[in-house]
Amino acid sequence: MNVPELIRKKRDGCALGRGEIFEFIEHYTRGEIPDYQCAALLMAIFFRGLEARETADLTEAMRRSGQQLDLSTFPQPKIDKHSTGGVGDKTSLVVAPVAAAGGLLVPMISGRGLGHTGGTLDKLESIPGFNTRLTLAEFRRVLGICGMGLIGQTEELAPADRMLYALRDVTATVESIPLIAASIMSKKLAEDIDGLVLDVKTASGAFLQKFEEARELAVRMVEMGTACGICVRALITDMSQPLGNAVGNALEVVEAMETLKGFGPRDLVEICRELAAHMFVLGGIESSLEIGCARFDYIIQKGHALERFARVIAAQGGDAKVVEDYSRLPRAQYEDSVVAPEEGFVAGLEARALGRASMFLGAGRERLDSAIDPAAGLVLEKKVGDPVSIGERICALYANDRARLAQAHTMVRSAIAISPEPVAPTPLIVGRVPDLS
Amino acid sequence: MNVPELIRKKRDGCALGRGEIFEFIEHYTRGEIPDYQCAALLMAIFFRGLEARETADLTEAMRRSGQQLDLSTFPQPKIDKHSTGGVGDKTSLVVAPVAAAGGLLVPMISGRGLGHTGGTLDKLESIPGFNTRLTLAEFRRVLGICGMGLIGQTEELAPADRMLYALRDVTATVESIPLIAASIMSKKLAEDIDGLVLDVKTASGAFLQKFEEARELAVRMVEMGTACGICVRALITDMSQPLGNAVGNALEVVEAMETLKGFGPRDLVEICRELAAHMFVLGGIESSLEIGCARFDYIIQKGHALERFARVIAAQGGDAKVVEDYSRLPRAQYEDSVVAPEEGFVAGLEARALGRASMFLGAGRERLDSAIDPAAGLVLEKKVGDPVSIGERICALYANDRARLAQAHTMVRSAIAISPEPVAPTPLIVGRVPDLS
Repeated sequence: MNVPELIRKKRDGCALGRGEIFEFIEHYTRGEIPDYQCAALLMAIFFRGLEARETADLTEAMRRSGQQLDLSTFPQPKIDKHSTGGVGDKTSLVVAPVAAAGGLLVPMISGRGLGHTGGTLDKLESIPGFNTRLTLAEFRRVLGICGMGLIGQTEELAPADRMLYALRDVTATVESIPLIAASIMSKKLAEDIDGLVLDVKTASGAFLQKFEEARELAVRMVEMGTACGICVRALITDMSQPLGNAVGNALEVVEAMETLKGFGPRDLVEICRELAAHMFVLGGIESSLEIGCARFDYIIQKGHALERFARVIAAQGGDAKVVEDYSRLPRAQYEDSVVAPEEGFVAGLEARALGRASMFLGAGRERLDSAIDPAAGLVLEKKVGDPVSIGERICALYANDRARLAQAHTMVRSAIAISPEPVAPTPLIVGRVPDLS
Repeated sequence: MNVPELIRKKRDGCALGRGEIFEFIEHYTRGEIPDYQCAALLMAIFFRGLEARETADLTEAMRRSGQQLDLSTFPQPKIDKHSTGGVGDKTSLVVAPVAAAGGLLVPMISGRGLGHTGGTLDKLESIPGFNTRLTLAEFRRVLGICGMGLIGQTEELAPADRMLYALRDVTATVESIPLIAASIMSKKLAEDIDGLVLDVKTASGAFLQKFEEARELAVRMVEMGTACGICVRALITDMSQPLGNAVGNALEVVEAMETLKGFGPRDLVEICRELAAHMFVLGGIESSLEIGCARFDYIIQKGHALERFARVIAAQGGDAKVVEDYSRLPRAQYEDSVVAPEEGFVAGLEARALGRASMFLGAGRERLDSAIDPAAGLVLEKKVGDPVSIGERICALYANDRARLAQAHTMVRSAIAISPEPVAPTPLIVGRVPDLS
C-alpha cells in the first residue's frame, strides 16, 4: 500500500476508506509499516480527526488484530466498567466486586498509571502476591470462581492497540478523541461483553479537560457500542479534585476496602453506586437505576462485596488477609502534613497537581520503565467545601524517600486554595450519555 | 531532552525556543532521537507552521549539523541560483556557465528528481562519464578550473537536511513552507556564498501550487538570507506548463546546449536571462538588471558560456564532445507522437501531468531506489498560445520501454487542451521578492 499517500489524504482532511484503515492496521501490527509513518498519521489524525465511520472501522481493525475472548459458557450477563483515568479513582476496586456479587460477570481488563493519573493494575499489585498478568486460560478460571477478574492487557487481545498506545505516548498524540475512543472500545469489544458503563472524567485532572470534549468522547463510544451490538452508557464525572480522599496505590486499596465495608467517602460512594446501578440495569438484573442503587447498598451492607473482593485476591494469588488487616499492605516510612494556613473553606484541591505530587512521592512513573512505590501517596482530610481552622491538617503525605517529602509538600500546598467565604461542594456527576434525565 | 513535551508544545501552537531547536537537531542527527518522534514533530509543524525566528533557528541548526565550505581563497563574488523544482526546468545548466563565464564563482549543490519534477543531477548524469559525487576537495579543484561546479549534497554538508528530507518524503510532510525554506537555505548557507537568486515555481506543476504560498516561501527565504548576511532575491515563475520544450534528462541537456548556442526556446531564455542578470547585480559585476541582461546575451553570443559548459563537463569526468555531437548522448529506441485532434490554439499543457508522463516513460523515479532512463522523456513542439492545425504534432515521446509508450500517450493527450479561440501566452515571471517594480 502507498502509505505516504494515505497520510497525505488524512493530512488534507479527507476520510480514509474502510479497506485502507484495515490494511494499515494489519501491516502495522505485522511490523511492515515503520513507526515513523504511523506517527505522522497519528499526528494528522490529531489535527483532522476521524469521522464516526472511520473511528468505528479503526476500532474494529484494532480489535481484529488479536484474539476475541469467548465467554459464552458463562451464564451471567457480561458487563464491564471503564474509566478514562483520574486522580484517586479507585472505583473499579469497589464496583467490580459489587457487580459480581450482584450476579454479573465482570471480565475487567485494566491499565496502569499514566502521567498524573493512577492505574487499577498498579493499585492491585500493592496487595502482596496479587498477579495481574494472567493467561486467558487463568483469567477464565478466576472468572469462574469469582464472577470477576482483574488483569492487564495481554499479548493476545488487541495488540494493535498496545502498539499504537505506546507510540502515542511518546509522540504527543494521546489527547485525540477518536483515538482514545478507538483504543478503549477495541479492548472492550474484544472482551465479549453485553454491556459497558463508562466513567468519562472531565476538568483539570482529566486528560480531556473541557466538558464538551468529554461529552463528545462519551457520545462517540456510546454510538460505537450500539453499532457493534453492545449497550453502552456513560457518566461524565468531575475530576477537578481527586475522587475520594486517598491518592496512591496501597492507600487507595485501603480506601476501597473501607468503602466495601460501608465506610467510604461520600463522593466515591456516590459514583460507585450509580456505576453499579447502571451495570445492573444493562445486565437486566434490575429494572431501574433506583432499585440498582438499592441493590448496591444492600450488597455492601451484607458484606457480599467485601467477601467477593477477598475471593478475587486469593484467586489471583494475593494475600486475602489484607481485607481484615491493613498492616499487611506496604506502609511508608515517612509522613508529613500540609495544614491550613488560615481559617476558611477549602475552595480548590487541584487534581492534576495533587496527582503529580503523589507521582513525585513515588506512586507513579516518571518513565515507562520506572518502578513505583506502592506505599507512597497522599490522603486528603478535607474536600472542597469543607470548613478549616488555622493549622488543621488538610493533607497527609507518605513516602519512603525522605528527600522528596519537602518538594511534594510545596506542590501540595500550592494545589490547595482556601476561601474566607463558604464554598459550595463541586457537583460530581455532571452529565450522562444517553441523557437519562 | 523531553521530546514528547517538545512535540506537544508545537502541536499546541507554541513557538519552540532556539535552544530546543538546536538540541533537537543535534540529537536527531546523532541518531539519539527516533524517526517516529521526528515524524510527529514534522507533521505538527506542517499544521502549526514556524515563526520567522524559529525557521531561522532551524536553518542554522541544520547548517551547523555538518561542515561549512570555505571559499575565501577564491577571488570572485560567490553567487548561487536555486529552483524549487519544476517540469522541464533546465535553467541551472544554462545560468551557471553564463554566470561563471561572466566572472562569478558558482558553487552549485543540486538535487535529484522528486515526484513529477526533474533534478539537475539526473540531467547531468545523462552525459557519459559526468560525475556529480565529488569530494569537497575535488569540488574545489573544479571550481578553480571552471569558476563553477555542479555536485549533489555530500555527507559533510548539512547532514540534518538530508535526514529530514528523506523522512519528510515518506511521511507526507514535504509541502510545508518553513520546512522547504529551512531545507533550501541550510544547504545554501553552508556553501559560503555572498548572494543567492531563487526561482520559486508556482501553479499546478510546482510543489506549492498557489501563488500566495510561493510568495510566502520567497519572502521567508529572502528574509532569512538577509538575517544571515547574504543577499537573496527571488523570482516567482509560472509552472502551469513545462519550461522550454524538452522534459527528460538527455533531452533537456540538448535543449540547454542549444540555449547556450543562442537557439533556446523563448520562455527558457527569458527566465535564464533574468536569473543571470540578478546574479551579476548581486555579485557587483553589473549595476543594473538591464546591463546584466545584456551581459547574458553577449556571453552567449561570444560562445563563452558554451565553452564554460564544455570545460565543466571535462573537469567533472564527462565527455565534453557532446557539446558538438549530440549523438554521443543516450538516445531512445522508440518514439511516438501526440498530434492535434482538431484545429485551434493550445490552451493548456498541464505541467504536472506531463511531468508524470515523462517519469512514466522512464525519466523519473517511482521509488527512491529506482533507476532512471536518461534517454526517455518528451519534447513539446507547441506551447500555450500557439496555433495548431488538425494532425499537427504537439508532443514527441521517447522511450526504451515500448509498452510504456501507449499509456504515456494517453497521459499526454489528456494533459493537452485545445481551444477554438486564440489563447494569450501565459505570463512567465509572475512576481519578484523584493518587489523591484
